[in-house]
Amino acid sequence: MLSLTAFLTVASTITVALAIIFNTVHDPLTASIGFGILGGSTTWLIIPMLTESFLNAKRTGRDAHKLTKPILPESMGVVAATVYLICLFLFIPFPFMDYFTGQHILSRKEPFHTPTFPHNKLGEFLSALLSLQSMILLGFADDVFDIRWRYKLLLPTIASIPILINYYVGSGETHISVPIPFRFIFGQILDLGPIYYVYMGMMAVFCTNSINILAGINGVEIGQSLVIATSIAANDLLFLNAFDQTVETHLFSLFFLIPFIGVTIGLMIHNWFPARVFVGDTYCYFAGMTFAVVSVLGHFSKTLLLFFIPQIFNFVYSAPQLFKLVDCPRHRMPDFNPRTNKLEYSTVRLEQPLSPVSSIVIKLFALLRLVEIKHEKEEIVVNNFTLLNLILLKFGPMHERTPPALRRAVVPR
Amino acid sequence: MLSLTAFLTVASTITVALAIIFNTVHDPLTASIGFGILGGSTTWLIIPMLTESFLNAKRTGRDAHKLTKPILPESMGVVAATVYLICLFLFIPFPFMDYFTGQHILSRKEPFHTPTFPHNKLGEFLSALLSLQSMILLGFADDVFDIRWRYKLLLPTIASIPILINYYVGSGETHISVPIPFRFIFGQILDLGPIYYVYMGMMAVFCTNSINILAGINGVEIGQSLVIATSIAANDLLFLNAFDQTVETHLFSLFFLIPFIGVTIGLMIHNWFPARVFVGDTYCYFAGMTFAVVSVLGHFSKTLLLFFIPQIFNFVYSAPQLFKLVDCPRHRMPDFNPRTNKLEYSTVRLEQPLSPVSSIVIKLFALLRLVEIKHEKEEIVVNNFTLLNLILLKFGPMHERTPPALRRAVVPR
Repeated sequence: MLSLTAFLTVASTITVALAIIFNTVHDPLTASIGFGILGGSTTWLIIPMLTESFLNAKRTGRDAHKLTKPILPESMGVVAATVYLICLFLFIPFPFMDYFTGQHILSRKEPFHTPTFPHNKLGEFLSALLSLQSMILLGFADDVFDIRWRYKLLLPTIASIPILINYYVGSGETHISVPIPFRFIFGQILDLGPIYYVYMGMMAVFCTNSINILAGINGVEIGQSLVIATSIAANDLLFLNAFDQTVETHLFSLFFLIPFIGVTIGLMIHNWFPARVFVGDTYCYFAGMTFAVVSVLGHFSKTLLLFFIPQIFNFVYSAPQLFKLVDCPRHRMPDFNPRTNKLEYSTVRLEQPLSPVSSIVIKLFALLRLVEIKHEKEEIVVNNFTLLNLILLKFGPMHERTPPALRRAVVPR
Repeated sequence: MLSLTAFLTVASTITVALAIIFNTVHDPLTASIGFGILGGSTTWLIIPMLTESFLNAKRTGRDAHKLTKPILPESMGVVAATVYLICLFLFIPFPFMDYFTGQHILSRKEPFHTPTFPHNKLGEFLSALLSLQSMILLGFADDVFDIRWRYKLLLPTIASIPILINYYVGSGETHISVPIPFRFIFGQILDLGPIYYVYMGMMAVFCTNSINILAGINGVEIGQSLVIATSIAANDLLFLNAFDQTVETHLFSLFFLIPFIGVTIGLMIHNWFPARVFVGDTYCYFAGMTFAVVSVLGHFSKTLLLFFIPQIFNFVYSAPQLFKLVDCPRHRMPDFNPRTNKLEYSTVRLEQPLSPVSSIVIKLFALLRLVEIKHEKEEIVVNNFTLLNLILLKFGPMHERTPPALRRAVVPR
């Protein structure tokens, strides 16, 4: 089933990972890298083995963007998420290893080493895992049952209770530095109080759903998640030489992101064009909640939004359809044209006369050149409001395996 | 869909529950009862509403013990477990409310009120939820994918890491009081050290799987869980007047058990004979892990085994088939006889000659009168080794709705 080369590669990778983990008892960051490698190679290894179970359990979807329209196993994100959780569970003792071995008495690296066991740090770690695991459970349930939108908005808020309580009993900081243009109104520092908790609770809702709706072609959910994860991790690395509490919060963030990047790469190999598996809502929720959790407990939830610019654009652009101001078909992913083997933007037919709200939205989007309108008899036909459709509208039909095509379209020769 | 009486009942119950919760800010035990009522009535209310989603998602099973063999929604335990988790998430702040309101400075109830926030207690709570939620995720995945036995044995051990780490950084107590007959060998107190952690890890494996294998007729999974839960809760109540740390650990146990009893009753009403829903592996894992978690963190994991006597018997009795020493068919539940409308013990056919191990097991069980052997041509036919089959063997065929029939069989007139 597995070729000899593949077997040797994965066996040696896992060996290296285990060697790193067992040799880095007092350096949790290196151990985390070990778990990242271990998680990634395990995910890569077991997904093909589990394909049959997924097909038997009817967890399948059809890849509509291929000529043969193959049936692929769906919600494989649950495998990556489970491997991730196992890695993180096994990792729990590592940041606290110095306390278990008595090393903390010798160490002088304040503020990381307090004289007694840092129960608050362990609590923070556990709350992060708890919130994250809740969303994985919700994502998987969504894959199986197709949960309604209103619950998808409510449940992430409940799932973020553990991290919010930890935030509250931890620093509980709710002051924000006001952006310069607004300082003449609010002053330099503003205490948002309870509103800040509402904002953090909304982060979970936003991060999970915004990744979930920027989907529809092979590798796009996982590709964007990998870009965001590496961006946050790079940002974290910049803080590791600081001399205050920020080191600790950014280390915390890395402990969660490194294994995440590992399992994501393991899953991506199977999901990249042409995909052999789909990642499902489970993966989107898992990814989004990882980002929400590290940003809240790492105290950089505002910075995080900078890494979410394409998702924010897609969300705002999609909003009229999501909130039913404009008709929304069941699927809004691009259409596949079997003659050209390329993807084209998908459309929705709106009956004339439009409702006043639809009319305003369409006119506004037309003004911003975000929509193409065709008049057909009694109806008007517009592209669906998603970033992927907009790209196809602006740059013309493209093959699904596209970056080269996009490059040709953007850079005129 | 819901009759007026039912609607008024559930609406008033939920109102009462909310009134209790909002009026008991400084009494977490009463709040817990409020959440129990809330969770129970919510579970009872939403299960019929979700039946269609479960049927659409093909989460169904056939009730083989009825004349009509109806198709029922399967794994409804995931609904009860989700409601339970939401209740517990919302409950997290309650035990710590005095710290949030500054009340702890006034209170003199040492050791419950420490001058600073008890991060260790919050960590304990979160670790318990984390371990529990892991098993709910595993149970649901098992319902969907039919996970193999070896993973079902391994994964609960990993799921219990959070509570074991909390046990370690908490009391870390590994001394046990040696039972009197063995004291001449081991002395009065024995330090089991790491073996005690292995034992606690095994508790999770045992509790979850032992409930899962004592199954097969309407209401039996949930009935036994309710009996165990109320037994532990009653035991906890006996400790509430103590004047030491045991009050706190038993309160902790009650915080988890009271909502569990609530959602269990809500689910039981739909699962009792004649069942409208099945509870699935999810419920068995959820129930078993709740017991394992409260017993480990409540420091009564040895006492817990007393409440598991029927499950221990069933497990030991089943072991030869579970470990394939004797042939094990796919299903071992009792057979339904449509002529009498009663259940009869199910059998397995073993080819002659038996393997030496099978032969020893069968002879031993025959000696203990735990098996009935029939010789048919080349084969021998024996009852499947489960407690339910044994009861049917000893007391004769019974109707599934049985306690009265059992009473008639046991008490001769």
